Amino acid sequence: MAITQDNIIKALSKVQDPDLKKDLVTLNMIEDISIDGNAIYFTVVLTTPACPLKELIKNDCIDAIHKYVDADLQVFPNMTSNVTSTRSTAPLLPNVRNIIAIASGKGGVGKSTVSANLAVSLAQSGAKVGLIDADIFGPSIPTMFNCEHEQPEVKEVNGKNIIIPIEQYGIKLISIGFLTPPDNAVVWRGPMASSALKQFIGDTDWGELDYLLIDLPPGTSDIHLTMVQTIPVTGALIVTTPQKVALADAQKAVGMFKQPQINVPILGLVENMAYFTPEELPDNKYFIFGEGGGYKLSEKYNIPFLGQIPLVQSIRESGDNGYPASMKEGVTADAFKDISEKLARQVAIRNANMAGTTKVEMIN
Amino acid sequence: MAITQDNIIKALSKVQDPDLKKDLVTLNMIEDISIDGNAIYFTVVLTTPACPLKELIKNDCIDAIHKYVDADLQVFPNMTSNVTSTRSTAPLLPNVRNIIAIASGKGGVGKSTVSANLAVSLAQSGAKVGLIDADIFGPSIPTMFNCEHEQPEVKEVNGKNIIIPIEQYGIKLISIGFLTPPDNAVVWRGPMASSALKQFIGDTDWGELDYLLIDLPPGTSDIHLTMVQTIPVTGALIVTTPQKVALADAQKAVGMFKQPQINVPILGLVENMAYFTPEELPDNKYFIFGEGGGYKLSEKYNIPFLGQIPLVQSIRESGDNGYPASMKEGVTADAFKDISEKLARQVAIRNANMAGTTKVEMIN
Repeated sequence: MAITQDNIIKALSKVQDPDLKKDLVTLNMIEDISIDGNAIYFTVVLTTPACPLKELIKNDCIDAIHKYVDADLQVFPNMTSNVTSTRSTAPLLPNVRNIIAIASGKGGVGKSTVSANLAVSLAQSGAKVGLIDADIFGPSIPTMFNCEHEQPEVKEVNGKNIIIPIEQYGIKLISIGFLTPPDNAVVWRGPMASSALKQFIGDTDWGELDYLLIDLPPGTSDIHLTMVQTIPVTGALIVTTPQKVALADAQKAVGMFKQPQINVPILGLVENMAYFTPEELPDNKYFIFGEGGGYKLSEKYNIPFLGQIPLVQSIRESGDNGYPASMKEGVTADAFKDISEKLARQVAIRNANMAGTTKVEMIN
Repeated sequence: MAITQDNIIKALSKVQDPDLKKDLVTLNMIEDISIDGNAIYFTVVLTTPACPLKELIKNDCIDAIHKYVDADLQVFPNMTSNVTSTRSTAPLLPNVRNIIAIASGKGGVGKSTVSANLAVSLAQSGAKVGLIDADIFGPSIPTMFNCEHEQPEVKEVNGKNIIIPIEQYGIKLISIGFLTPPDNAVVWRGPMASSALKQFIGDTDWGELDYLLIDLPPGTSDIHLTMVQTIPVTGALIVTTPQKVALADAQKAVGMFKQPQINVPILGLVENMAYFTPEELPDNKYFIFGEGGGYKLSEKYNIPFLGQIPLVQSIRESGDNGYPASMKEGVTADAFKDISEKLARQVAIRNANMAGTTKVEMIN
């Protein structure tokens, strides 16, 4: 076939995005085609820098051009990304492409650990990431990011005070922990806590972000309601441990997001503290908190199962020391990277197939 | 010395209660002295059936009579108990001798597990025990007591609906879990949750109890404030794991109870998930969540350290299966028994040395 722009487009229209189930041309993912003798250049704009299918799609493009245009061409796809969004016309934070709520129902299952590590993994892939610590009564994010003593600056914009998030490891962070002394209990009824969250969302200078993660507190109460009433959330990630009482609460979190008047898509489920393996017995898995419960729950509710994270002392230590485990190379970082890619993928699938979430108007 | 009632009293006035630091006669703990020839009978009324010093005090009484009255007497102390209270004139639940709040700040550290097992241990000692599951958004108590499908009856008393608690393993229980379907999320703002707690305290037929435990939710918000505003609490027990982010939150819970306008005495601290020991390596302790943090926190705040509970699969399994681990004999039951005795002891010490807690009038 003649080596023309049209024929290259025809060839690339045979390449499917496996997640979005459409071809790259229909998906407007091909840009800047140029032909220089025997060499073909073009750009593939993926839906996330954390795309786990990057290499697969790249090779599919090369193969398609060899098959449908000319087997002797040298093909140089330039793989970039432009994170998709259903939020570009949102009245609040239109420059934040995706807002992901991280919830568990039960406390202590590792929501903050998972949030911190996924934020790091997404940022490492090249995405612009922010993280709101919405746990007003038990903020863990400042400890996990080694910035407990930072105090965010405030600037005045049009007569309004705007908080500038703390930036650590390339991630923009906000937490009540930056605004109160560590020893002090914040003993507040719901409305005070809710107004703190509203400030973290609406009165904070988030700038342009690909992913803004919201690390929710346990339960299904004021903070959760205020979140969905303040801003349309792209989707929710559920974290659970395999134990029955955690699964019961995770189920309640799922139930909350699925309530017709709330209706936030659930992007996936992560099972944390899946098993413990002592160094001395590397082949043994101790299912201290039970086995397989997370997977079963994801099947029951038809939620993508994004993966398991073992109970590893170094994950807790990294968190306590302020360096999320994903920052060091190793099996733990690999596990979080894998989950972050799957999460980004689910966001892209959700954005391709569903309209934007609607802000909840009134409830209770 | 002559074998007279007076001389027996004199001898017993040499015996100290090691906790209360006064002698048994001054403490009004001696009753029903009778002399039958060579045999001496009397009753020692301890401050709790869970008294860990029972044998020590019994032997001290026998020794004192042998030493100060006659070495050849046969002494038969009858050890009973009458749980002390600072609540007997309280307007609400005056027949509940002690109310113990169990708090952690952070979720998932095992508050419910500890509450369930201490309730069982106290009941096994002979005490009358009730347990309020105040975690409205993540009730675990029905699962842990294998009564998830029970529904409490309601009776009318003076035109008011009164809930009759579920009784399981000899413990009176109430939980939102008995009143809502397990799959349903209770998505409520604070005031709704608070009114549920008020019903659990004020509109529930608790009858006479030695100890009413209140298993609090994570955080320091509506439920906690409503509790201290509804009823004077005898004292609080803090549960934590050794990990830094849990200790930080436990510290916040301590801070809340110590706030001058709240001022609830702290009875002690328990460190849960202290270490893991695989069956195959019984000498190894894996400090997955860190080492010694609970003890350090208790020292920092001068709180009695009541003990450590290891991370044992069977504790979680017992909870998930509805039979608290303390119900089976073994090291775990022994650990909880020991902690329950220390807790009961701290309650007695608190009651002997401090006035009743004052209900919090207004805050926020």
